[in-house]
Amino acid sequence: MGDFTNPVMAKLGRRLRLAVVGGGATSFIGGVHRTAARLDDRFEVVASVMASTPQRAREQGVQAGIVEDRAYGTLEEMLSAEGRRGDSIDAVAIMTPNHRHFPECKAVLEKGLHIICDKPMTTSVEDAIELVHRVKQAGVVFCFTHNYSGYPMVRQARDMVANGLLGEIRQVNVEYSQGQLSSYVEPNAPERLKWRLDPARGGPSAVLGDIGTHAHQLLTYITGMPLAKLAADVGPTVPERQNDDYAGMLLRMENGARGTLWCTQAASGSENILRIKVFGANGGLEWEQNFPNHLKHMVQGEPARILSRGLPGLCKAAHRASRIPTGHPEGFHEAFANLYNDASEAIAAKITGTDADPLALDFPTVEDGARGMRFLQAALESSNGNGGWVDCSLTF
Amino acid sequence: MGDFTNPVMAKLGRRLRLAVVGGGATSFIGGVHRTAARLDDRFEVVASVMASTPQRAREQGVQAGIVEDRAYGTLEEMLSAEGRRGDSIDAVAIMTPNHRHFPECKAVLEKGLHIICDKPMTTSVEDAIELVHRVKQAGVVFCFTHNYSGYPMVRQARDMVANGLLGEIRQVNVEYSQGQLSSYVEPNAPERLKWRLDPARGGPSAVLGDIGTHAHQLLTYITGMPLAKLAADVGPTVPERQNDDYAGMLLRMENGARGTLWCTQAASGSENILRIKVFGANGGLEWEQNFPNHLKHMVQGEPARILSRGLPGLCKAAHRASRIPTGHPEGFHEAFANLYNDASEAIAAKITGTDADPLALDFPTVEDGARGMRFLQAALESSNGNGGWVDCSLTF
Amino acid sequence: MGDFTNPVMAKLGRRLRLAVVGGGATSFIGGVHRTAARLDDRFEVVASVMASTPQRAREQGVQAGIVEDRAYGTLEEMLSAEGRRGDSIDAVAIMTPNHRHFPECKAVLEKGLHIICDKPMTTSVEDAIELVHRVKQAGVVFCFTHNYSGYPMVRQARDMVANGLLGEIRQVNVEYSQGQLSSYVEPNAPERLKWRLDPARGGPSAVLGDIGTHAHQLLTYITGMPLAKLAADVGPTVPERQNDDYAGMLLRMENGARGTLWCTQAASGSENILRIKVFGANGGLEWEQNFPNHLKHMVQGEPARILSRGLPGLCKAAHRASRIPTGHPEGFHEAFANLYNDASEAIAAKITGTDADPLALDFPTVEDGARGMRFLQAALESSNGNGGWVDCSLTF
Amino acid sequence: MGDFTNPVMAKLGRRLRLAVVGGGATSFIGGVHRTAARLDDRFEVVASVMASTPQRAREQGVQAGIVEDRAYGTLEEMLSAEGRRGDSIDAVAIMTPNHRHFPECKAVLEKGLHIICDKPMTTSVEDAIELVHRVKQAGVVFCFTHNYSGYPMVRQARDMVANGLLGEIRQVNVEYSQGQLSSYVEPNAPERLKWRLDPARGGPSAVLGDIGTHAHQLLTYITGMPLAKLAADVGPTVPERQNDDYAGMLLRMENGARGTLWCTQAASGSENILRIKVFGANGGLEWEQNFPNHLKHMVQGEPARILSRGLPGLCKAAHRASRIPTGHPEGFHEAFANLYNDASEAIAAKITGTDADPLALDFPTVEDGARGMRFLQAALESSNGNGGWVDCSLTF
Repeated sequence: MGDFTNPVMAKLGRRLRLAVVGGGATSFIGGVHRTAARLDDRFEVVASVMASTPQRAREQGVQAGIVEDRAYGTLEEMLSAEGRRGDSIDAVAIMTPNHRHFPECKAVLEKGLHIICDKPMTTSVEDAIELVHRVKQAGVVFCFTHNYSGYPMVRQARDMVANGLLGEIRQVNVEYSQGQLSSYVEPNAPERLKWRLDPARGGPSAVLGDIGTHAHQLLTYITGMPLAKLAADVGPTVPERQNDDYAGMLLRMENGARGTLWCTQAASGSENILRIKVFGANGGLEWEQNFPNHLKHMVQGEPARILSRGLPGLCKAAHRASRIPTGHPEGFHEAFANLYNDASEAIAAKITGTDADPLALDFPTVEDGARGMRFLQAALESSNGNGGWVDCSLTF
Repeated sequence: MGDFTNPVMAKLGRRLRLAVVGGGATSFIGGVHRTAARLDDRFEVVASVMASTPQRAREQGVQAGIVEDRAYGTLEEMLSAEGRRGDSIDAVAIMTPNHRHFPECKAVLEKGLHIICDKPMTTSVEDAIELVHRVKQAGVVFCFTHNYSGYPMVRQARDMVANGLLGEIRQVNVEYSQGQLSSYVEPNAPERLKWRLDPARGGPSAVLGDIGTHAHQLLTYITGMPLAKLAADVGPTVPERQNDDYAGMLLRMENGARGTLWCTQAASGSENILRIKVFGANGGLEWEQNFPNHLKHMVQGEPARILSRGLPGLCKAAHRASRIPTGHPEGFHEAFANLYNDASEAIAAKITGTDADPLALDFPTVEDGARGMRFLQAALESSNGNGGWVDCSLTF
Repeated sequence: MGDFTNPVMAKLGRRLRLAVVGGGATSFIGGVHRTAARLDDRFEVVASVMASTPQRAREQGVQAGIVEDRAYGTLEEMLSAEGRRGDSIDAVAIMTPNHRHFPECKAVLEKGLHIICDKPMTTSVEDAIELVHRVKQAGVVFCFTHNYSGYPMVRQARDMVANGLLGEIRQVNVEYSQGQLSSYVEPNAPERLKWRLDPARGGPSAVLGDIGTHAHQLLTYITGMPLAKLAADVGPTVPERQNDDYAGMLLRMENGARGTLWCTQAASGSENILRIKVFGANGGLEWEQNFPNHLKHMVQGEPARILSRGLPGLCKAAHRASRIPTGHPEGFHEAFANLYNDASEAIAAKITGTDADPLALDFPTVEDGARGMRFLQAALESSNGNGGWVDCSLTF
Repeated sequence: MGDFTNPVMAKLGRRLRLAVVGGGATSFIGGVHRTAARLDDRFEVVASVMASTPQRAREQGVQAGIVEDRAYGTLEEMLSAEGRRGDSIDAVAIMTPNHRHFPECKAVLEKGLHIICDKPMTTSVEDAIELVHRVKQAGVVFCFTHNYSGYPMVRQARDMVANGLLGEIRQVNVEYSQGQLSSYVEPNAPERLKWRLDPARGGPSAVLGDIGTHAHQLLTYITGMPLAKLAADVGPTVPERQNDDYAGMLLRMENGARGTLWCTQAASGSENILRIKVFGANGGLEWEQNFPNHLKHMVQGEPARILSRGLPGLCKAAHRASRIPTGHPEGFHEAFANLYNDASEAIAAKITGTDADPLALDFPTVEDGARGMRFLQAALESSNGNGGWVDCSLTF
């Protein structure tokens, strides 16, 4: 099949050919990437480097249905072999442990291929900034999978803020809490947790790399403005833990709006609660990832309005990111797939030399990735000091 | 790609080849079927008859990415042409207007192909019973897409009842309310509503055919027992309407449990609310389709427990139907895909002569389709009388 | 103290003197009545007959703070003794077991005293109708404590329907479920349950007398119209039970609107869920007693609105029934007290010969009590037949 | 009447005589105090100084039902006149603007009367500490109305933490958001807002005095430990505002637990949301004031449990603070009344020389008032610096 109702995809006349790097048998996010790529039939996953050792990489690729000669053992092997094919890959999706994103992105960029990259982007701000420049030079599409940006009601929220429905933004509050690290699981942790908790592979902060950057990006995506400065408390709450599992922050947005942020992976029983509240001069919004099809719109002195995905009256960006009618719940996979869809249109537009719908280009970028790394770094700076304010703005 | 982690699919060694009949450009459910088939990469939609006129059928098939020579104009054409191919279709998914299900199923059965069929199954009990017999004779897989049965927490509920956690079932209450027909939309209705409201094409009751049979099946699926009798009030609540849009019912389950059922498509602003409550001697369950990742378990005198998809301790059937961790919402597409996955394993087992996991065979069947038609017929009988009790049991 | 901000109470210049009959040590509702009477300081409970035997009645009255010579042993004693006092009682609140309401009301009416009476009003329709006539003749205030009518958001709902915001009412759905009788508690039941389950004292239907009449009254109060006919299934769901604990009904309102009603006291773990949905041509309302400060207003194709108690824009009746700002939850006691407040104004107006605010006269009346009895009787008629439709209208 | 089921009250044999100071016609909290005092019939409000000018004080006292000769014009007048009566007041409830609490408490203490005092306790830490010493010397009951401590499910939470059900506490998160100051209402603000926003009368921080101290006290009440240090951002979010309306904080509890706190009165449409989450080594709790009858108990890997007020299995303190069965919502008034009930038993025990139930002595005290002032002061210190950590412990 293939989805050719999208005019840019129709012009391309075929599905995009995607390679996946990472996301093998022990990974949760690997399956999500592949499902997201497949959901709307705009990508075909045709090649893979599924694990960090060549043999496992090849085996797991075949197991995932990649034809044998494209289930590669290493990235180098893949980039080299694909370069010799007539039907070679258009894009590479990277979902390896964090420390490998930077070298892998560089290698892919050298081949001029488009990139879909998981977060956090790198393990240092310096690498992140370098990647920004390299992506600009290469002129390729770089879609950074802060997947919560893909939810239709998040796009609705972003649109409402951008169109001034809340007035000037004045306050924000973000919570991202999970419970998977609420006890000292390290001794028997699965690989997928182990590398996250290892600073050499996961980066200098486990909690900020894994979920804090999501919270930060969601905040900047909805409010449409960067974070200017922060004061933070970052550390472990489980006594035996080496790495961190908690961050509390005071925030100041670019326009002076104040805010608080709490993220943790050690809140026993907390089921991936990602909740954001944004208040402006004329109203407020609340969204919670666990109930993603609804967005609460508040105005002082008026009844709260529950905006539901699919309702007439929502913005174009929300409708574009929605597949089925109101009352038929969409979720995590569809949101993730929306980033893939955006990327597909952006990539197909590049290939065919056409213009993508501007709404399709509203996905998180390499710059967002760099800002996330600066956010992480600034939080550690503040926390390692006396918790005072640290500037975290970033210009490229 | 292709999902070969499932042992039966691995034995088959390829994706199943599926044809779709119906579900063209104006359809909502067509896209859902195709996405569900694709979601886990066990099916490949390779052929189609997408519309009721040959030209539109061919055009829409190509637009949906079917290769030109398999984007057929009619079912007869497809069945004949595919029969001559080496890589011919394994199964046919039928999602045409209701009155066409019966003749189309018969035609497909004559070719010995497996069937995935949308609801309601037929437009009369007689046709439904005949279909039960024909499916038995053909010995093929017949998966009937009462998709709400695909939700993991519905399977958890079914398992809890079957394992006696609630004790003997004593009371049930079901609501299925929508708002799309809350005003007299008929004059300008889109085709997808028009045929539903036309008794010749949609069957004798619009509301029962479209959503009432879902409510009935969900009830029997969770409680694990048939409905014995009912007393009903069926009719329009919008004065100008010819067909019905409302049904209220009193229920008696096979074991004597009592219940009420309300379904309507004319509740202004009701966003596809499908909610069920089941109470037994030792506890109760509540599930609502709009928040499908949670199941409320009540026991008198104890705190309510909120069971979440993905939690350890849930039954195998629930875990089997779940893809991602707790707190990452799954929804309508995944539930629908679960039926496709069940069907894929059942079909692949037939083809390869192996045994499917019994949990994979717990999808709605042709018998469920027939029971649904008897439910619909009995409700009209009761309502057209004085609303008294009518037996609705059915044996084959 | 005393609340003299109300102009009618200010004219009276004192608190009303109330006697309570019933509601002694074993009662739940007795304490509620006394708290409700006291909450806004318009009544002073000065006399009592708190139990069914003179000695216990006197003891419990004193224990509840009644001065010794007014803690009477019997109703006759009280009516006679109070008649001889200068500061005698203005009104009597009756909260005895159901079968005593009728004779006690008659005795009180003979003294020309005002009445606040708990539900169900009597144990037969005949008695109820006789009481309607006697109250009319006596010309006193008769406030019937269907307390759910006292919730501000219920009054808001009633106002919205009356003002046509929903358009013509077309559908209703009511649930009233409790769990206290989900097992066979009879052998060791406390007195307060025992008399309810005894037809001689509780009346012919336990579930309808205890909660079904509340559901019926709430429905007619919000929709502003009587129930025209019903078809019912009433009986026990706990096998050993003699009396009933379940009722399911199909409803037809006076204007032809259709509906369903479910009430039970045997839904294990159900925490006094009283929920009502009302849909009209232009929108719908949903209210749930467990979260009484909010009312959901739905309109097809628009975001749902959550109306909160205390918000500007609510109707006068809602504001009148509300004491504290939005976000400070009010509950059961305040709703009950609202009926007492309404009654206080009505009684004070009678005594002082002034006009009460018409909004204060919108409490449930003796006629509502009679309609409730006819509802109960009709349900049993239908259920004891084949469940067909039974007219339940009542004219006086 | 009078509630003599409580043994200490029964020993006293009469209701306590209470005077109210403040809480006149323009006040919201005045009516709440008087209703709370009356709700369970243990207090009788017999004297008042209802306003800040003698004439208005007298008029409003009479209007509230105080007999004319006890509707005093000033506190001095009342204390002097009551001292000469045989039936003089037992206790004084103070609900004047914040800056008057300190001098008024001192004057009342000099007469040896018991005190019920609204928050914040004073306008400086120094005054607060002095008050702690004076109360100790006087040996009277001082009940500080952090009313949210009166909710049954808050007491349940406190008990669960104290009994180690959550294990060592590791994280806390508190939100207290309101919307009443979301725009620049100052020019036309009612008196009740005006004095709050005037530093001379409301104290140095409007938002912390009005709601921040509630959030702080709730946190320490539930966790059973003091706050050790904080880092804060306090200020206005409405540009024209002179005073503050927002505070964000990082917290460190005495045992090292980390936390975040957000409070604001400028979140447009936020309806008095007071929500707290507490996580320990073995589980977490969540409570929200808007839905106070429920408490969510989470344990990693298990279904969440919703504890409801009134359920068997709750702690004694929760049952003691609860009046009616599960499913019959209690709210703000009852919680407030619970503090009055606690105080009544403490005062009656003092008067009669008996022991109060220890559970009755678990109300907020003068020390809590002082800790709240230190919290407020420390937050301003941190915010006026660079936002770094400030110790806020306090010993007496």
